[in-house]
Amino acid sequence: MFIEVKLETMIIIMKSHVTDDEIRAVEKKLESMGMGSNVSRGIERTVIGAIGDERKVDKEALEALTGVEDVIRVMKPYKIVSRESHPEDSVIDIRGVKLGGKQIQIISGPCSVETQSQMDSAAQSVAAAGCRLMRGGAFKPRTSPYTFQGVGVEGLEMFRRAADKHNLPIVTELMDVRMLDTFLEHKVDVIQIGTRNMQNFDLLKEVGRIQTPVILKRGMSATISEWLMAAEYIAAGGNHNIIFCERGVRSFETYYRNMLDVTAVPVLKRETHLPVIIDPSHAGGKSWMVPALARAAVAAGADGLLVEMHPAPADAWCDADQALSPNQLNELMGELRGIARVIGREL
Amino acid sequence: MFIEVKLETMIIIMKSHVTDDEIRAVEKKLESMGMGSNVSRGIERTVIGAIGDERKVDKEALEALTGVEDVIRVMKPYKIVSRESHPEDSVIDIRGVKLGGKQIQIISGPCSVETQSQMDSAAQSVAAAGCRLMRGGAFKPRTSPYTFQGVGVEGLEMFRRAADKHNLPIVTELMDVRMLDTFLEHKVDVIQIGTRNMQNFDLLKEVGRIQTPVILKRGMSATISEWLMAAEYIAAGGNHNIIFCERGVRSFETYYRNMLDVTAVPVLKRETHLPVIIDPSHAGGKSWMVPALARAAVAAGADGLLVEMHPAPADAWCDADQALSPNQLNELMGELRGIARVIGREL
Amino acid sequence: MFIEVKLETMIIIMKSHVTDDEIRAVEKKLESMGMGSNVSRGIERTVIGAIGDERKVDKEALEALTGVEDVIRVMKPYKIVSRESHPEDSVIDIRGVKLGGKQIQIISGPCSVETQSQMDSAAQSVAAAGCRLMRGGAFKPRTSPYTFQGVGVEGLEMFRRAADKHNLPIVTELMDVRMLDTFLEHKVDVIQIGTRNMQNFDLLKEVGRIQTPVILKRGMSATISEWLMAAEYIAAGGNHNIIFCERGVRSFETYYRNMLDVTAVPVLKRETHLPVIIDPSHAGGKSWMVPALARAAVAAGADGLLVEMHPAPADAWCDADQALSPNQLNELMGELRGIARVIGREL
Amino acid sequence: MFIEVKLETMIIIMKSHVTDDEIRAVEKKLESMGMGSNVSRGIERTVIGAIGDERKVDKEALEALTGVEDVIRVMKPYKIVSRESHPEDSVIDIRGVKLGGKQIQIISGPCSVETQSQMDSAAQSVAAAGCRLMRGGAFKPRTSPYTFQGVGVEGLEMFRRAADKHNLPIVTELMDVRMLDTFLEHKVDVIQIGTRNMQNFDLLKEVGRIQTPVILKRGMSATISEWLMAAEYIAAGGNHNIIFCERGVRSFETYYRNMLDVTAVPVLKRETHLPVIIDPSHAGGKSWMVPALARAAVAAGADGLLVEMHPAPADAWCDADQALSPNQLNELMGELRGIARVIGREL
Repeated sequence: MFIEVKLETMIIIMKSHVTDDEIRAVEKKLESMGMGSNVSRGIERTVIGAIGDERKVDKEALEALTGVEDVIRVMKPYKIVSRESHPEDSVIDIRGVKLGGKQIQIISGPCSVETQSQMDSAAQSVAAAGCRLMRGGAFKPRTSPYTFQGVGVEGLEMFRRAADKHNLPIVTELMDVRMLDTFLEHKVDVIQIGTRNMQNFDLLKEVGRIQTPVILKRGMSATISEWLMAAEYIAAGGNHNIIFCERGVRSFETYYRNMLDVTAVPVLKRETHLPVIIDPSHAGGKSWMVPALARAAVAAGADGLLVEMHPAPADAWCDADQALSPNQLNELMGELRGIARVIGREL
Repeated sequence: MFIEVKLETMIIIMKSHVTDDEIRAVEKKLESMGMGSNVSRGIERTVIGAIGDERKVDKEALEALTGVEDVIRVMKPYKIVSRESHPEDSVIDIRGVKLGGKQIQIISGPCSVETQSQMDSAAQSVAAAGCRLMRGGAFKPRTSPYTFQGVGVEGLEMFRRAADKHNLPIVTELMDVRMLDTFLEHKVDVIQIGTRNMQNFDLLKEVGRIQTPVILKRGMSATISEWLMAAEYIAAGGNHNIIFCERGVRSFETYYRNMLDVTAVPVLKRETHLPVIIDPSHAGGKSWMVPALARAAVAAGADGLLVEMHPAPADAWCDADQALSPNQLNELMGELRGIARVIGREL
Repeated sequence: MFIEVKLETMIIIMKSHVTDDEIRAVEKKLESMGMGSNVSRGIERTVIGAIGDERKVDKEALEALTGVEDVIRVMKPYKIVSRESHPEDSVIDIRGVKLGGKQIQIISGPCSVETQSQMDSAAQSVAAAGCRLMRGGAFKPRTSPYTFQGVGVEGLEMFRRAADKHNLPIVTELMDVRMLDTFLEHKVDVIQIGTRNMQNFDLLKEVGRIQTPVILKRGMSATISEWLMAAEYIAAGGNHNIIFCERGVRSFETYYRNMLDVTAVPVLKRETHLPVIIDPSHAGGKSWMVPALARAAVAAGADGLLVEMHPAPADAWCDADQALSPNQLNELMGELRGIARVIGREL
Repeated sequence: MFIEVKLETMIIIMKSHVTDDEIRAVEKKLESMGMGSNVSRGIERTVIGAIGDERKVDKEALEALTGVEDVIRVMKPYKIVSRESHPEDSVIDIRGVKLGGKQIQIISGPCSVETQSQMDSAAQSVAAAGCRLMRGGAFKPRTSPYTFQGVGVEGLEMFRRAADKHNLPIVTELMDVRMLDTFLEHKVDVIQIGTRNMQNFDLLKEVGRIQTPVILKRGMSATISEWLMAAEYIAAGGNHNIIFCERGVRSFETYYRNMLDVTAVPVLKRETHLPVIIDPSHAGGKSWMVPALARAAVAAGADGLLVEMHPAPADAWCDADQALSPNQLNELMGELRGIARVIGREL
């Protein structure tokens, strides 16, 4: 009763008054791509299935043919990062700290590295709050060329020194391919690719050649599919230690900075085996929003958080209004611990 | 070589490890909706075509079945308004003024009806500029309950009197179903359904029961498909005199009020036989943007424009910063006339 | 040292090369609105403060004056609904069930009323799960005129009968002003204003004249400020029993139906004293996303949820893929109870 | 009567129940940034003006202080690129071809460089159509790592050879800072910075150090202000030969690829002295939309267009469905010439 056919990877829907020549042109085009075809001709509408490896198919070239109404991809374009290819959760080991397993990781620290004493104080507060990973930016992507751009390489050293006292692996952002060697020399434990660089493909290819874990922040208005494809660039190079980080997307709302897409958490957990974390600080942009967003993220199933904390928030050199104080971080950790327990996880 | 099958109106893509039972459940569900099915089983992926009248198909009920990955609609959901159903352009006759044909119609007038003398002066300027239709609001949808809400029924009378002196058909907005009879008594020539009411389905059904031409403004963030479906509500009731009006959509940009979607013009001209006009005044929200947007709209192929003009813009009771002065309207008409000629139309 | 001046409700920023005449024109315009002014003239830039009741100020009329660069509102345009006007949380009493206090309310039930037996079964499951309020739609706003539009008045009766057996107050959507009397006759306990009607101002005014609690769903792309203003329409009429419901907003993402704006919870709790609930079912549009979103909403501080549940989801007449089964609802209630406890609330 | 004060560059609006200490904290913070302050104390609301060079002000640090409700920037953050700083239009000279003056430039060519014969044929068609500049990509930013990534350096050589026969300056995209020297060696006439790199600040800084004209495409969801700031990065380095290119932004609409923001044309012409061009091909994503969008762009006041043309569109190696054929380009040029004349320009 069922007709056994080969895998259809794309479906080409023809216009209502399609001619035989137009149908044959699609078949020929598919053939030239090394694909087979399967034509279902209806009374009003003909549908052609493309059979073979969809990576060979050029969707746009098919859409350009006369008589073609629409071309629909049946297979997902991402492979290595997809849960289909790897059904179990991937747990990433960051110098002994596990991200993606039962334990939820809160990565905390200041927006930017300022001074040694600021970093020392921050590292102590991070460790005291029970966090196992520390964040801080030595190179800062800033909208204006006239604002503070980060302290640079010296900042990496200050960060390293401060974090090492508490044995905290460090997370910091890489913006420029030419700085990668410096990052490796300073043994950066987790490289962060920022929002503005999510589709900086040369940078993605470079971090795909090493094994250092990478936090890939979502682009300002990247779809989940584009984000998974950006991760696929890293994975295709051989580095599978990828952590997705949702940090709010652009929207029409002007009350807060970005709209946190909390739905991305269950969606990514379904589509990929890789860990998913949330940055509630950059999402809302105001420290008073952070606890609510952080609790929501953990409740939704995030594997971790990136939370900005500064020893003296009002004196921070950048994003002063979004950092928590050490006390606020402590209090938040208590709430998150409770929520983690309710959903069968731990902090 | 081709297998003759009946019309596939929906395509159901099954998950990769689908079972025979799951496939049969889809077939059964389609059967219960009075549809046939056509199963293409591949090595990794099975695709089922739903055969029959797609209006009977409940897409969500299919998506809810286990084993279903995605359900794709092949046929368009809009019928009467689609160009497939009516290949020639529809020309709407508004008391002798033709909208949708070779002649482009510039509909002008103030945002809101204020006084008899303001309307008299406005009507004279509208006619003097060579416009053949006049706009003005007697009932105003305002974001705040504390701002001017329109002068009401009395405004319709003022508008009627002013326009009649120049034999200008009038365009005005209907917000409340209970006012329809009043609109008919005042012989409103074109009823405008505003942005905020594009999916006020009870209102759409009511204007579907009469034959007065309707300008259907696009919802603040309505997709083109939803907009066509809103028109289908009117058309399904029997009123096919529908004019689409693009007026800018919500976006992340804060420099101006709304983002004019000029691409909607060629898209609608392809998808529907009905006329398409543009409101450059509400899109940008500032009078200095209006000429550029108006020229762009005509160049893109719009059948008309809704342009706000006020005898004394700075004194307007609402949206004072977006109305053109009579002189500015005159100047714009000259430019539009030139562009119309270049693309084989007239003003 | 400080100069005592009257309240500046708007700030008018003049262009860099402003003339004295332009400044005087602004002062005169303000005077004509019954406002005072306060001019600060700088080397490059002059700033004028408007003094008085900002409800009298026409922002657009000021922006239309030459020499004006920008007009900034200092006071918030919403009054009755603002937390400034009423610092304590408002608790709304729905036949003895309190919404907005320590207890979180989960309002559950099917998308639409179908049959008496479906409603009886649903009501039993709602009560058994420990929910204290029931939802169900007798009138349905549907994108297509060719799909199921709700069972109508008869549905209200079925709903009433089913809910009364378990003493559950009922929540149902009002779309048409002409149906309000019918809703009152059937003693609907909470009237829902849907997304597409958030700015249907005539409908808002009507429900402002009664005392029945109103759930005001956020418009598809309404800003938080517009949403508060829509509530102000209801409040200005005398009905202060308003409940805000976030249900996802329009975005560029196509993986799911709407993007749940979880940040709206802490923002609204800061801006208004009225309760805030979340509809995780309409946000994601798929039942498998509902538990994660529901947990996030409660963790973020929502006062309640609207959760779709159907006795047999796959057979639902609308939105079949988003309803939970009775068992899934039970399980979710357990998790939510745990999270409520962590943040000092109860379910 | 007017009080002479120094330039207020920021306005800090305090909360309604502000204390003297909170006001003094703001004054002190401003002082620490080298700024003066000007306090206007009202009955309900106090407003503080920050006096001095706003580039020294850290907006976030002020927002973080207790008692601060809002901080509003009065001065624009962009300097060199602003029309305030340079009131006349800048005309950029590209080997004798002027962009930004009376003459409108249509830059045409294929999406990507494929073979020498394809480029030879394309160059001939570009020149024959009357275009004076040619485009083509040797390095392609592609969403998927598995699709064609451009032919690379060899492509630059093919492009150079083909264009030189017709004396056409070439426009091509730079993605990686490490390729800049190669671009200079091949004497690329105009360097394009793509959408995904608009905020790749290291790349912007590098092209700021040379004098080659730069086309800066707008980021997928960049506001006009962010886009101007990205240009300011280039200008701050010393390269003022910057051309803005609008190419459609991300929106909720799924019918076409991107939403062309035609309003950006009049807005940029007001805000900056630099030329503004439009890419109608990447905006709509379908060749049948290109003529309408191209006409709209010229009518709106654009200084030029980037139009994809391929000798055989259906065989193009990327974006096959969006390229015009040589004949279609010819026809479009005729229409654009007519529209240019109407608005006092030439092609």
